[in-house]
Amino acid sequence: MGERHRRRVCENWGMPSSFEYQVADLALAEAGRHQLRLAENEMPGLMALRAEFGDSKPLAGARIAGSLHMTVQTAVLIETLVALGAQVRWASCNIFSTQDEAAAAIVVGNGSPEHPAGVPVFAWKGETLEEYWACTERIFDWSAEASAAGADFTGPNMILDDGGDATMLVHKGREFELAGAVPDAAEGDSHEWRVVLGVLRASLAVSSDRWTRVASEIQGVTEETTTGVHRLYELARDGELQFAAINVNDSVTKSKFDNKYGIRHSLPDGLNRATDVLIGGKVAFVCGYGDVGKGAAEALRGQGARVIVSEVDPINALQAAMDGYQVTTLDAVIGDIDILVSGTGNKDVITVDHLLGLKHLAVVANVGHFDNEIDMAGLESLAGAERVEIKPQVHEWRLPTGRSVLVLSEGRLMNLGNATGHPSFVMSNSFANQVLAQIELYAHGEDYDRQVYVLPKLLDEKVARLHLDALGVKLTTLTAEQADYIGVPVEGPYKVDHYRY
Amino acid sequence: MGERHRRRVCENWGMPSSFEYQVADLALAEAGRHQLRLAENEMPGLMALRAEFGDSKPLAGARIAGSLHMTVQTAVLIETLVALGAQVRWASCNIFSTQDEAAAAIVVGNGSPEHPAGVPVFAWKGETLEEYWACTERIFDWSAEASAAGADFTGPNMILDDGGDATMLVHKGREFELAGAVPDAAEGDSHEWRVVLGVLRASLAVSSDRWTRVASEIQGVTEETTTGVHRLYELARDGELQFAAINVNDSVTKSKFDNKYGIRHSLPDGLNRATDVLIGGKVAFVCGYGDVGKGAAEALRGQGARVIVSEVDPINALQAAMDGYQVTTLDAVIGDIDILVSGTGNKDVITVDHLLGLKHLAVVANVGHFDNEIDMAGLESLAGAERVEIKPQVHEWRLPTGRSVLVLSEGRLMNLGNATGHPSFVMSNSFANQVLAQIELYAHGEDYDRQVYVLPKLLDEKVARLHLDALGVKLTTLTAEQADYIGVPVEGPYKVDHYRY
Amino acid sequence: MGERHRRRVCENWGMPSSFEYQVADLALAEAGRHQLRLAENEMPGLMALRAEFGDSKPLAGARIAGSLHMTVQTAVLIETLVALGAQVRWASCNIFSTQDEAAAAIVVGNGSPEHPAGVPVFAWKGETLEEYWACTERIFDWSAEASAAGADFTGPNMILDDGGDATMLVHKGREFELAGAVPDAAEGDSHEWRVVLGVLRASLAVSSDRWTRVASEIQGVTEETTTGVHRLYELARDGELQFAAINVNDSVTKSKFDNKYGIRHSLPDGLNRATDVLIGGKVAFVCGYGDVGKGAAEALRGQGARVIVSEVDPINALQAAMDGYQVTTLDAVIGDIDILVSGTGNKDVITVDHLLGLKHLAVVANVGHFDNEIDMAGLESLAGAERVEIKPQVHEWRLPTGRSVLVLSEGRLMNLGNATGHPSFVMSNSFANQVLAQIELYAHGEDYDRQVYVLPKLLDEKVARLHLDALGVKLTTLTAEQADYIGVPVEGPYKVDHYRY
Amino acid sequence: MGERHRRRVCENWGMPSSFEYQVADLALAEAGRHQLRLAENEMPGLMALRAEFGDSKPLAGARIAGSLHMTVQTAVLIETLVALGAQVRWASCNIFSTQDEAAAAIVVGNGSPEHPAGVPVFAWKGETLEEYWACTERIFDWSAEASAAGADFTGPNMILDDGGDATMLVHKGREFELAGAVPDAAEGDSHEWRVVLGVLRASLAVSSDRWTRVASEIQGVTEETTTGVHRLYELARDGELQFAAINVNDSVTKSKFDNKYGIRHSLPDGLNRATDVLIGGKVAFVCGYGDVGKGAAEALRGQGARVIVSEVDPINALQAAMDGYQVTTLDAVIGDIDILVSGTGNKDVITVDHLLGLKHLAVVANVGHFDNEIDMAGLESLAGAERVEIKPQVHEWRLPTGRSVLVLSEGRLMNLGNATGHPSFVMSNSFANQVLAQIELYAHGEDYDRQVYVLPKLLDEKVARLHLDALGVKLTTLTAEQADYIGVPVEGPYKVDHYRY
Repeated sequence: MGERHRRRVCENWGMPSSFEYQVADLALAEAGRHQLRLAENEMPGLMALRAEFGDSKPLAGARIAGSLHMTVQTAVLIETLVALGAQVRWASCNIFSTQDEAAAAIVVGNGSPEHPAGVPVFAWKGETLEEYWACTERIFDWSAEASAAGADFTGPNMILDDGGDATMLVHKGREFELAGAVPDAAEGDSHEWRVVLGVLRASLAVSSDRWTRVASEIQGVTEETTTGVHRLYELARDGELQFAAINVNDSVTKSKFDNKYGIRHSLPDGLNRATDVLIGGKVAFVCGYGDVGKGAAEALRGQGARVIVSEVDPINALQAAMDGYQVTTLDAVIGDIDILVSGTGNKDVITVDHLLGLKHLAVVANVGHFDNEIDMAGLESLAGAERVEIKPQVHEWRLPTGRSVLVLSEGRLMNLGNATGHPSFVMSNSFANQVLAQIELYAHGEDYDRQVYVLPKLLDEKVARLHLDALGVKLTTLTAEQADYIGVPVEGPYKVDHYRY
Repeated sequence: MGERHRRRVCENWGMPSSFEYQVADLALAEAGRHQLRLAENEMPGLMALRAEFGDSKPLAGARIAGSLHMTVQTAVLIETLVALGAQVRWASCNIFSTQDEAAAAIVVGNGSPEHPAGVPVFAWKGETLEEYWACTERIFDWSAEASAAGADFTGPNMILDDGGDATMLVHKGREFELAGAVPDAAEGDSHEWRVVLGVLRASLAVSSDRWTRVASEIQGVTEETTTGVHRLYELARDGELQFAAINVNDSVTKSKFDNKYGIRHSLPDGLNRATDVLIGGKVAFVCGYGDVGKGAAEALRGQGARVIVSEVDPINALQAAMDGYQVTTLDAVIGDIDILVSGTGNKDVITVDHLLGLKHLAVVANVGHFDNEIDMAGLESLAGAERVEIKPQVHEWRLPTGRSVLVLSEGRLMNLGNATGHPSFVMSNSFANQVLAQIELYAHGEDYDRQVYVLPKLLDEKVARLHLDALGVKLTTLTAEQADYIGVPVEGPYKVDHYRY
Repeated sequence: MGERHRRRVCENWGMPSSFEYQVADLALAEAGRHQLRLAENEMPGLMALRAEFGDSKPLAGARIAGSLHMTVQTAVLIETLVALGAQVRWASCNIFSTQDEAAAAIVVGNGSPEHPAGVPVFAWKGETLEEYWACTERIFDWSAEASAAGADFTGPNMILDDGGDATMLVHKGREFELAGAVPDAAEGDSHEWRVVLGVLRASLAVSSDRWTRVASEIQGVTEETTTGVHRLYELARDGELQFAAINVNDSVTKSKFDNKYGIRHSLPDGLNRATDVLIGGKVAFVCGYGDVGKGAAEALRGQGARVIVSEVDPINALQAAMDGYQVTTLDAVIGDIDILVSGTGNKDVITVDHLLGLKHLAVVANVGHFDNEIDMAGLESLAGAERVEIKPQVHEWRLPTGRSVLVLSEGRLMNLGNATGHPSFVMSNSFANQVLAQIELYAHGEDYDRQVYVLPKLLDEKVARLHLDALGVKLTTLTAEQADYIGVPVEGPYKVDHYRY
Repeated sequence: MGERHRRRVCENWGMPSSFEYQVADLALAEAGRHQLRLAENEMPGLMALRAEFGDSKPLAGARIAGSLHMTVQTAVLIETLVALGAQVRWASCNIFSTQDEAAAAIVVGNGSPEHPAGVPVFAWKGETLEEYWACTERIFDWSAEASAAGADFTGPNMILDDGGDATMLVHKGREFELAGAVPDAAEGDSHEWRVVLGVLRASLAVSSDRWTRVASEIQGVTEETTTGVHRLYELARDGELQFAAINVNDSVTKSKFDNKYGIRHSLPDGLNRATDVLIGGKVAFVCGYGDVGKGAAEALRGQGARVIVSEVDPINALQAAMDGYQVTTLDAVIGDIDILVSGTGNKDVITVDHLLGLKHLAVVANVGHFDNEIDMAGLESLAGAERVEIKPQVHEWRLPTGRSVLVLSEGRLMNLGNATGHPSFVMSNSFANQVLAQIELYAHGEDYDRQVYVLPKLLDEKVARLHLDALGVKLTTLTAEQADYIGVPVEGPYKVDHYRY
């Protein structure tokens, strides 16, 4: 697939100029800049941080290695970090998620395609795994910056991570340097892991302490996702975490907004772009009633579908029932379903048997997690099943039953594959948390142990606060007497830590 | 713009073969056939009519001239008419609305691009007005069919019309033949009218009675839209209607479904494809609370927007209030609006002053009617206003105030321009009414005067009935006692004519 | 039951004073006046008509015989008619529906319980059928008023009717007078019909032309309900209607508001007062998806129930599906239902078999029509069934299955029996139509034939208009150009007659 | 007010019989038993616990002193505790909240009013404060039970508390015994505190160690509410807590269900019973968007009101906006509001100035907290304000502005005062937590320190699980592979502790 999506990669890497980058096509920069301008209007949190901190530049001196989907929204994040004084190098955290025009706009910056003056980005849509890890490695090579500054450093002093790949590379690199060797791949190791080992083996051949130096220079990492956070907690538990970490994922303004309201928007968007099938009147089944499932169910009901929900957790199941949804197993109603949505974060939620039991041309969509939420492997090896491409990311699977199902995005996240992911406004919340976490860790990294922290509730509330004006929300202010009565400061924070919102 | 959208037009018109057509590219037929198969699954009304009437072929002998958007859904309609025994020739009723792959699939039929074996279609996306009217004229030339059948007829015996262009051409052609001359265009006549006059002038030069014969052969027309119906009522009122007409537009299963549920689907779809702006939390203003406005408001609320409505009719205004919406004038809240939607069917609903008063980068969308719902002419002539194309059908208008607005589809219907129009399931309702109307008029045309009729309620109910199974709906049956108690037949119709649903 | 609800009836009928009335207890007047004041605030339509016509008194000279539930809302109607110049005599149209404090307040008027100075009312909660028809007869005896005015008339010159009892009495009285005799009751005649015959037989014994004179003096009747309207159309069809009639029921501001929005309010209200059962999370089944069913389903969904709908009309069934409800037969899901609501207007919708199939302690509620929507007669004669009163209007029926069901209001309209009927704001719409119809018929009765008319759309729109301010609705005004463009007057009416809203 | 609500108190206290009680009227027992039977059907959690533990009787030997609103739902709780083997004595925790028929039914038990055989209850609607604390004291006097058992104990070994009054009495009694004296009331002490001091002074005069013994016998307390929990955390923090405590309030199945879904039900119920004002079309303002506010807003929107929300916490404010509500200050829209609801838990949320600014006859309702959410004291002392009782719990306050407002339940919780509080199904969740907490603490009290605990998540999930069948919910079961994949046991618990639901 890398080949298929490949455009001419436009690069300036290894050239005499000190400005390195590798993106698809700098000619896309103008189109990308249009998108950025529109996105800025939808990302009031980031723009407010630029206004608040643009003069004081709390990130002056920060060298941030960023590994996060190189989209339009991330572009606004990058330029916010720069506006706050940081130097930045960036790669994407997924081989397909780069929006090439956004990458181009960031590289060009306030220059031109001929004389780019922006930020070094190493990302394009449709990288191979080899390319992906080469790009990730590039965000840790700050020799050009060191040379330009006449300073003596190897890499970044901060990481901004999504999924933990960048953090993992540093930790594994250091580990193998300490061991003096990169192990051979074991039988059964994934292709991707072999690629990582190759990168680190090549590095070790050149330097015995590159990653050790990199690790020692880093003050901290701020992590975006559940998966990355999970890795961090494991490292911290095992005493192996090399720097402090802030868990951005569990800020209320991240997890309760991104998941619920983001999916509410992007699920019907993806369904519509993929199939043009009327949602109204249809039977839609949503696997899982966590935040993602709640957003999915609300969106489908809002379009007039009859929504049925499945759950394994009795508390979430009871919530679904109290919200008016039928709650049952997928097996019990499999033959009635027109639109089947999985949003659980588990695997094999939709099995081949389920697919065989669906109505003819039922639509199957994953908004939860990896493609293994749906047993795509089982489907691909099913005797007599045939895959017909209707259009990119939309495939009719003709089944031995004589019926077909429509599988979106090959079982991967369809809100990314068939739509454009979370809208800017939602990402502004997530990314404002990222910026505040970067500021905090960069300024006070020495106050933090090598543990995983969440942002204090007051900053979480601040992120929310930065998004109110854009929606015309007027906040009520507590009087001193009222604040005293409920035992909180007038300016917040307002809730105990276990408050559930 | 004709040029811009033009692909190689692939034609077989005027060639020795008796099979004429003119479409963009027959190589698109396979892609089109994929779309048709999916659409058939979403158009149970048409497929049920094929099942019910496929053997008896009530349209055997019918020669239908069709003028209606040449889309995937229309393709399913055309093949349904053919399955019921009709011969068909088809043109689109809009220069932009043809989906070229659907047109190709219809022409190819069960043949191949090299040996097409389908239906004569004369339509492609991006016709010039001259091409458009030439195509329309082609659907009235049945000489090839007459010759093949060894029969003596000039044109069709039925029209299936959308907007009334086909019907108008016949009436004007006959009128000018009776007058013996086509009048010169008057000062101020539109370009399109001059094109029509040209077509008819050329015809008159060849034959003094072609359209008179055509008119006399036609048993009736079935008309899809409000605008076309309006023209028909005027012709009937003036005693000039040359054949019977059925007003399909005012079937309940057309007007109450197409408008409300169609827009509920396609408005957010269009907004999302155009802008990727989060709808949740935004202030959305909907001008008009008729069926279109009701669908628009429901869709926006279903996505978490705060919806404000304007109305001129106090009954509709009271409905909006009782449905929980704020109802006020556009002027009163113009500065608070993020998304401005017009769905009224009137002109100048959104004025230049309104546009100047909107928030920066507010989105402006028309789902009502012609582009004059928004004063686009006024905007285009506004001193200091600048138009920047973000992408096709999405333009930023930079205003002298320093703010911008995003205008979708250049002020035209954005559910067609930015999305793909009404989904198949909705169109299956409309088109099942069309098929039943064609069957009725073709079988019993002699029983009808040269007036405009609506379908009897029993057929309206039948259309609904044909769409229930697909949604898993089980209908309850009246007992004889119950039917007698409320004074209706067990099998319907169930309501008095003025029942409002 | 008459006995049970009876309070001391406080009367001044047949006494020397010219002020006649018969109500439960004038001491309730103050409590009633409180309720009236609150209701006036919720009935802006009526209050606006007082303001508009209070000086010109278009009903001066009108003598109105009113037969309509003697509730708080009707009290505001009565005082509006009086404010517009009318003389009024009033009875209820249902033996149970009188609110005694409202009746008392109307009788007392601006006087005191000792010296009442209001309007003659003949109504109390819990009348026997004999009392009911005696009260109805009283509203046609205007001898006191004639005597006071020194005028020569027998009865009213207008009727305001609900259900048609008052109109029927006049027509039957005249018919028997013409025949010279009141027929004997036939085998199988209902008790109520025998009571009516008795009243008319007694009248005929006293006067041979009383009802003939009454009929000749009446200019017209305005009728509130479907049932009454149905009787009027039959009389008109048979050429027997003795005066003009206005069908108030089919004004949009009556039927589309009263039915839908009234039930949306009063169904959950009645359920809650009757049972205190949590609606959220429950399976609620609504029989019928007309306006009543639409309101019921919306209310139940709004409380978090899962709503299933049944329909016999495929169009309404399709609407229900498109609105996101499961649509199936009652039989198909009878064992899953917690709350069973009937709103059809038909009989035997809920059979004994259905009741036997319900879950233990399922709630059964009728908001449609007479108590025969539920087969109460069948239930009452079911062997082994036992009725236990939980509280008034709430009965547990213990069934031979060992399960019980909770039947509300003995199968009668539970929004009246368990709640307080339609709220004032809804009734203000209905009653404003009544007042406008009275004004129209009284002023222009001679222009009307002995037929049934609906109010012109402009008056329907006016009724809506009168209710907008109270809800803070600001209406948009058409420009002259816009009105011309769509072919309507600036001030309305705005829609064609068959527009469905 | 104690006088006003007082019925004949029917008691057997201090009589020779060992069965003590004090309730309003045992003749109400049959009516109460009807209510209990209906409630049992709505409390599947409690009934399931009876089925699960009825044989093993894990509470055998437990002596529970209960202080919690003596309602129908509590009656089902009490009989559940008894079914599990416990002995119980009960008082209400509020002078007004007892439902006398429920209290009577519990006392009568399976006996008769003449020979009651149930549980000792000391509660009636409308107690004075003196009576209230005397009743509370009675639940700690287990001399009759000790005597009957021939055992040597003073009081209970468990407390089930709501608000903490029972727990406070024990702690204060012990404290004063240790000090050897009960202090005099200080200037400014409330009347209620003086009553408490009086009770303890009388006790100390009789025994120097009664409460010390009581405290030492108690293994633990389970506490229902936020307020009571707050007191417990303070005692634990100060090292003064005398036994272990389980915080039932913060179980998810308590706080997220009771608050949100309970209010969603009871707010419109209370509004309707109080005023009969149509909610549809009205402007409703909800102060606070916590769980209570969320439920209130959803209920009002579900009835067709336009809902505006105020918030002090920016996160909750952003949630409200994303859910489609206008969010602003009360001051900004005070003149537009028809229905004003406060659900914050703070004081002076609605000030006298707000009341003066409301529309005429706007409805003011508190569902949050104490009556000081509304400045009732300020209103009562406002010069020129007049209070008119429309009916009990509904008062028109005529204001110096010439306008009036309708204040429900004198500013106290209107869902209790005007409706009947939370429905049984919601309380079944809360009370199943109580029962599980009692079982846990009674069985394993020695494993707990004198701290405050929450129930383990698995028990929280169990409570939810017990309520699924009644709603027809079918739960999905994880496979072993799936459970392993996400790192949870197949049978739960399924979520990390900070999961927000």
